[in-house]
Amino acid sequence: MSCFQVRTDLALEARESIREADGELRGVIVEEWDRKESQIHVTKVQITTKNGSRLMNKPIGTYLTLEAFGLAEPDEGYHREVSEELARQLRNLIPDLEEEKSVLVVGLGNRAVTADALGPKVADNLLVTRHVVKEFGKAAYNKEKVHAVSAIVPGVMAATGMESAEIVKGVVEQTHPDVVIAVDALAARSTKRLNRTIQVTDTGIHPGSGVGNHRNALTEESLGVPVIAIGVPTVVDAATIVGDAIQKLGKENGNPLLFDREQSSTFMELNNMYVTSKDIDETVKRLSFTISESINEALSL
Amino acid sequence: MSCFQVRTDLALEARESIREADGELRGVIVEEWDRKESQIHVTKVQITTKNGSRLMNKPIGTYLTLEAFGLAEPDEGYHREVSEELARQLRNLIPDLEEEKSVLVVGLGNRAVTADALGPKVADNLLVTRHVVKEFGKAAYNKEKVHAVSAIVPGVMAATGMESAEIVKGVVEQTHPDVVIAVDALAARSTKRLNRTIQVTDTGIHPGSGVGNHRNALTEESLGVPVIAIGVPTVVDAATIVGDAIQKLGKENGNPLLFDREQSSTFMELNNMYVTSKDIDETVKRLSFTISESINEALSL
Amino acid sequence: MSCFQVRTDLALEARESIREADGELRGVIVEEWDRKESQIHVTKVQITTKNGSRLMNKPIGTYLTLEAFGLAEPDEGYHREVSEELARQLRNLIPDLEEEKSVLVVGLGNRAVTADALGPKVADNLLVTRHVVKEFGKAAYNKEKVHAVSAIVPGVMAATGMESAEIVKGVVEQTHPDVVIAVDALAARSTKRLNRTIQVTDTGIHPGSGVGNHRNALTEESLGVPVIAIGVPTVVDAATIVGDAIQKLGKENGNPLLFDREQSSTFMELNNMYVTSKDIDETVKRLSFTISESINEALSL
Amino acid sequence: MSCFQVRTDLALEARESIREADGELRGVIVEEWDRKESQIHVTKVQITTKNGSRLMNKPIGTYLTLEAFGLAEPDEGYHREVSEELARQLRNLIPDLEEEKSVLVVGLGNRAVTADALGPKVADNLLVTRHVVKEFGKAAYNKEKVHAVSAIVPGVMAATGMESAEIVKGVVEQTHPDVVIAVDALAARSTKRLNRTIQVTDTGIHPGSGVGNHRNALTEESLGVPVIAIGVPTVVDAATIVGDAIQKLGKENGNPLLFDREQSSTFMELNNMYVTSKDIDETVKRLSFTISESINEALSL
Repeated sequence: MSCFQVRTDLALEARESIREADGELRGVIVEEWDRKESQIHVTKVQITTKNGSRLMNKPIGTYLTLEAFGLAEPDEGYHREVSEELARQLRNLIPDLEEEKSVLVVGLGNRAVTADALGPKVADNLLVTRHVVKEFGKAAYNKEKVHAVSAIVPGVMAATGMESAEIVKGVVEQTHPDVVIAVDALAARSTKRLNRTIQVTDTGIHPGSGVGNHRNALTEESLGVPVIAIGVPTVVDAATIVGDAIQKLGKENGNPLLFDREQSSTFMELNNMYVTSKDIDETVKRLSFTISESINEALSL
Repeated sequence: MSCFQVRTDLALEARESIREADGELRGVIVEEWDRKESQIHVTKVQITTKNGSRLMNKPIGTYLTLEAFGLAEPDEGYHREVSEELARQLRNLIPDLEEEKSVLVVGLGNRAVTADALGPKVADNLLVTRHVVKEFGKAAYNKEKVHAVSAIVPGVMAATGMESAEIVKGVVEQTHPDVVIAVDALAARSTKRLNRTIQVTDTGIHPGSGVGNHRNALTEESLGVPVIAIGVPTVVDAATIVGDAIQKLGKENGNPLLFDREQSSTFMELNNMYVTSKDIDETVKRLSFTISESINEALSL
Repeated sequence: MSCFQVRTDLALEARESIREADGELRGVIVEEWDRKESQIHVTKVQITTKNGSRLMNKPIGTYLTLEAFGLAEPDEGYHREVSEELARQLRNLIPDLEEEKSVLVVGLGNRAVTADALGPKVADNLLVTRHVVKEFGKAAYNKEKVHAVSAIVPGVMAATGMESAEIVKGVVEQTHPDVVIAVDALAARSTKRLNRTIQVTDTGIHPGSGVGNHRNALTEESLGVPVIAIGVPTVVDAATIVGDAIQKLGKENGNPLLFDREQSSTFMELNNMYVTSKDIDETVKRLSFTISESINEALSL
Repeated sequence: MSCFQVRTDLALEARESIREADGELRGVIVEEWDRKESQIHVTKVQITTKNGSRLMNKPIGTYLTLEAFGLAEPDEGYHREVSEELARQLRNLIPDLEEEKSVLVVGLGNRAVTADALGPKVADNLLVTRHVVKEFGKAAYNKEKVHAVSAIVPGVMAATGMESAEIVKGVVEQTHPDVVIAVDALAARSTKRLNRTIQVTDTGIHPGSGVGNHRNALTEESLGVPVIAIGVPTVVDAATIVGDAIQKLGKENGNPLLFDREQSSTFMELNNMYVTSKDIDETVKRLSFTISESINEALSL
């Protein structure tokens, strides 16, 4: 048993850390497959019962994870194969997308903090259409059906004095979207997933997670419309990495190190520290482009 | 008579251009004074009747203008004397500020367009308190009274697909501020006012003005709470400058040039062009600091 | 005769304003052609004699101008047809490019001033190779010939305390490039050329021109190696625009307005003001990408 | 004995890790004192012999370290007490500063990578005077003596194709400063020093250290003039943190964990990862201001 709580926003990692302990999990269905041509590994975790939800410490719903090793590397085409796969998964998760929809994209996070700027940057690159449709009708796009896409960057509480959920709720009540897509930077448990994993879920955003800890509930329950959440882990909590490494080495050595994380000065020094890649500035820029492209594509008709 | 419409966001300039034509104006009261110690010239234009409103092409209300020649120049103290004067005027305009208030500051404009970024930058520098007061009470500030200050940067329609008025309205309905302060970059008629004039009014924001033309009504009528607007002219429409120069030179020469602005290729080429100062990037940064300081001070207790 | 000096960095505009006055010009050869498929108009001005140089107020040499109306508009492909044409012209102007060369690209201008940031942004997007070739040899690129490309952003004198020419000279003497390519934002005389004209010349950079007025000589004479200069006009001096408009309207009316630019308060107010397009931030970003792509292509083997 | 090499740019940390092993160190003199009024702890490490240099893995010379716990926190006055202390130490280290000097400040690092942007940002905030002194003489400052201050941001090799040492050498040979001050972000060994420690040394910059690993020698030997280096640790290598934590916990437990860092997959995953504070963007901005102020003050007469 772990001597400290699992800290990860990824259902995939939650699953792994529990599997190690408990083997089979009731109420949790896992499927995996590879996209040969694009070298993307897709994992679908479905939490179907309250028991599964309790074990995974995540709400009932579907969690899709796209892992692409190359995603952390520069690419001239901004990883088009990944954005296409993500578009495909988004189309599956968003209800009734063959009908014309009004979609509000929410870019969560802090524009002024590199590792937390994923959401705002995705919003910046998005193709918004709502104002054009409203003023000129679908004729402006020469199509029979056009989704009305809008976007908001609510900012973080330290800068706005408001919870981002308050702002989003106000905008939702004023503009009545059919569905909300919320994008945010995540915290992973392991560096091997940093910047190369995209999680999509139909369960929305839940409090107390994310890089900047700025998240309040953005869910169908709180907003009244379905909420799809897209996230990429850009940091790992520093204390988590140290704790995990110690356990792993202890196991390899058959010689576990005992420590009380709450008491240890070693861990206290790691408070408010995170581990990130050296090229995080460039990486967040690139990832935000890949994700905004996938949303643009999923919502094109 | 002018062969084209006056294009200015400044009540002061509207007054000047009409005075030349019509002398005395009924329904418009103008007072002026100088702050000797700080070399700030203050003009108070009050539009008191429908006639005055029609003549000035501006709503009934109070328009204060602070002119400080040095404001366009760098200053180590970020023009503290100007922010103090502005704080004083804000205190006069905001109703019942001796009572504890909840204040929402709206940073209008486009963060990505230098001359239009004044509003967002003011919001960035603001001291927001609402979330702290809500969580810890006034005790957190060790004061008997604390205004709850929040801030929002709604973004521009081309980026959000929504009118900024829709977003602000949603946030107002969700968070119930007692008063809104909206900050925006303005268009002036004359370069001599660029970056050295601050206008404050209790009439709010009206459509069709501002640098980016992104403004919809933010008024007591539309939002249900008083709206104070603060603006600084950062650009002049290029065609306006050319037209004005021609008229002025013609008058000096006793030899007016006749031209039809709508027809002239000279003017068509100036479409979507504006005149701004060479150091606009630095200037907007500095001005935003001066204004956010004045709001911080006006709302401190 | 003009009552004020022509202020333009474009040989094309210098030619036009003189042609109007003097008809044929000895020592100046002009050729023009259209690239049908790409809608680019190319003008080649060759100044061949001292007389031509004196008349044009520009040094002896070749000045190529690419005009593409669409260049000022957004384009998904970042105007690939323009960067290809520019690459072709660069290949003609750079001596002996079939041989392996060492090329230093200099990004002139001020990163912190939007309209002046073209040079620094081009340098940012450039494919530099010199360090790789030096460490791993041509093998790293799997090619028989590889140009060694390096880049420097010297900054402006107000920020460095040095003339950019001093910095570039030091770098040239230390790293011995075969040729220098200098990129800078220019001032045009007419708004109709803003952001849609690219000038390339083999005469280098000459003092007293450019947006920020930060330019000192970067020429074969001063640096000891050929200097190719690439420039795009991003601003027009505000006083120039007003003066030109008045002359043009006066001529149309058969009623010239007489004025002394040095004396007129109208013109004094326009001091340090420039005219630029409303979307200058986005435009400079896009243009810098088009130019860096053309250099990348011209220098690929 | 450590199973992996000490990786720190701080002489202070090198000293600590050796002291633990070897007790007294010949050729290394350490003095420490506290500035009571400002709560700054100063440590002066002098390496005086080849033996000391070998043991410390650092060149012979003086290393001053200022530690101020509050430095990592926001401060309205940008930590004036720290910049004053640093100015005092700089005045001691720079030779003959009572004479008029020409000083070149070099901002090392990568402007586009948050944790590595300290040097460029210090250069941005600096008061440069060389161009004014050259053009108008000391009279411009109304003083008898004025140091001629210049600044350069050479950029990183991946962007320039040149070693920053090549660029700096070229500039030094062209402009002949009497002394060079080089500023850079450092890597520390322990998170407890992150953002709250400033190191100043008269030994210049040595290869293979720094955040971005972009450093080549900038020393009196390579440049021909004295080189003062100022650095602040903004990151810790992630593998170092894990390794140190394991050793420390093992020691506390009397139960050392044995591992081969080169072999361990745990450590391989930490490759190219670093640990930094959550507010690194804001912190680097603030620290750069404190340091540029200290240089401005040290060089004012």
